[in-house]
Amino acid sequence: MDHFLDKSHGRFGFSANETPALKISPGTGETIGFETSDEVYAQLHEFRDMEKLTVGINPVTGPVYVEGAQPGDALAVTIHEIRLKDRGWSVSLPGSGALQHVMGQEMFTRRVPIDDDGVHVTSRHTFAPSPMIGCIGTAPAEGSNSTIMPSTPQGGNMDLVQCRPGSTVYLPVMVEGAYLSIGDIHAIMAEGESSFVAIEAEGIAVVSVDVVKGMALRAPRVETADEWIFVGLGNPVQESITRGYEDMFAFLVDGHGWDRGDAYAVMSAVGHSQLGGPTGSADPDPLHPFSAVGAVTIHRLPKAVLASGD
Amino acid sequence: MDHFLDKSHGRFGFSANETPALKISPGTGETIGFETSDEVYAQLHEFRDMEKLTVGINPVTGPVYVEGAQPGDALAVTIHEIRLKDRGWSVSLPGSGALQHVMGQEMFTRRVPIDDDGVHVTSRHTFAPSPMIGCIGTAPAEGSNSTIMPSTPQGGNMDLVQCRPGSTVYLPVMVEGAYLSIGDIHAIMAEGESSFVAIEAEGIAVVSVDVVKGMALRAPRVETADEWIFVGLGNPVQESITRGYEDMFAFLVDGHGWDRGDAYAVMSAVGHSQLGGPTGSADPDPLHPFSAVGAVTIHRLPKAVLASGD
Repeated sequence: MDHFLDKSHGRFGFSANETPALKISPGTGETIGFETSDEVYAQLHEFRDMEKLTVGINPVTGPVYVEGAQPGDALAVTIHEIRLKDRGWSVSLPGSGALQHVMGQEMFTRRVPIDDDGVHVTSRHTFAPSPMIGCIGTAPAEGSNSTIMPSTPQGGNMDLVQCRPGSTVYLPVMVEGAYLSIGDIHAIMAEGESSFVAIEAEGIAVVSVDVVKGMALRAPRVETADEWIFVGLGNPVQESITRGYEDMFAFLVDGHGWDRGDAYAVMSAVGHSQLGGPTGSADPDPLHPFSAVGAVTIHRLPKAVLASGD
Repeated sequence: MDHFLDKSHGRFGFSANETPALKISPGTGETIGFETSDEVYAQLHEFRDMEKLTVGINPVTGPVYVEGAQPGDALAVTIHEIRLKDRGWSVSLPGSGALQHVMGQEMFTRRVPIDDDGVHVTSRHTFAPSPMIGCIGTAPAEGSNSTIMPSTPQGGNMDLVQCRPGSTVYLPVMVEGAYLSIGDIHAIMAEGESSFVAIEAEGIAVVSVDVVKGMALRAPRVETADEWIFVGLGNPVQESITRGYEDMFAFLVDGHGWDRGDAYAVMSAVGHSQLGGPTGSADPDPLHPFSAVGAVTIHRLPKAVLASGD
């Protein structure tokens, strides 16, 4: 890789008030390695006590200043590779996620070995790695966005399995330079990540960056080999779905000149909608900091529908 | 097929107060064909005016009385085949679904031809049929459940693409005889069905029925060739996810004797969670009868994880 940011560049917010760890020119194809940290999980495993932690959850490595990126543009971050190390973690954080009622206040932690055979989640269950980036975003116009929740129009802890090698993540640019940060690599994650944690892992995400001038986005967008994926943010979930689906409709009708009825009918047939990560779209209740308010949804459009006649 | 119920048996509710259209013995392997109706869509297409409709949305054919089914049991409905006819419909109902803001008050309808080449959704987009049952359920202990919304513990308009040939749908039995009804066949549907309608079609669902004594369910469950699928119902979406995920956890820990940590970690890795249909889990606001309150979610467990050592 052409540039490497080690995990000492970890920060607990997305902000343009940080000093950039790196300045780059967009569109050169140069690759940047973002090393991420699993220290919080190692400490949870060692101490079994959130009170004893000396580090926070989900540091993001960066920020990277992208020359020429201006508000109103989009940053296009192409993920080339995610290198895992030799371990991951399964952890239950008391008060978080959909299994808190059955896992309770006990501090469950497990070191999950990763080797050439795969990810050893239990003594009987080894899965092929499916590494992805949990937390990716640009800086907001003011202040600092969380690396835990909520997810925001600038990204954040979206926990989308589609943020994996081969994908390009489009993020709105709100400040000059964009200030890209990346963290929270997962070795494998169930879609929707209902338990709030995946198989969390330290690793290196290798990406390249480009700027798309004048591509205004109200939420992140992901391009995979086969699909365009529109992220919805809103509360309640129906509002989140509406926003993501409206963006898909505008992409077809305004962006590709489709007949409105054609867009409606094709989306009804093959415009799949799913849950994104469990991190919500509004600031959590301070008394329940790991319980989401609102929903992150994703809306998947097969590129094949674009192939004919537009 | 061994029994056939034509669409004249369509009813606009799931209820044990209806006279059974058929009585069967469970577990014989005998097949029952449920013909469903697309008349409401044909009328919308003809009249382009909801005021002129003479029929309602989503009639369900039945009910079928299943001998020996008692409260506390589950009905297991195996879907063998879904036969489509020569047309489907794409329709936008004003005030419904995630695209009402862009489709507006215009009455969009389109006849979608179905032939050996597939489902002709637009003049340039033909998709392979992927027929499924939108609306399937048993009768509640009292009164009548809606065939539109909300989805209930006894089923209803869940709009799950997994209710397709090869699947078995498990539904709680609340009254002696269970009173099974089926309607709302879709020729193809985007997962999550965000626009509230799919490519709606008339057809015949061919199923067989068994009773599982003492299988108590708090929500429907679907078994496919590869997965167990737990349905969550709740408001907000996080409550729906919690309930579905709790059921999956109980299935592994209580039902299969798994270690709790193993269940937690495996679910975090491969227990995918998604949106179900858009019909919600609570009675809709009377002023917005097609806007969901709460969410239907599904939680998918690969059967392969059960293969070793339990």
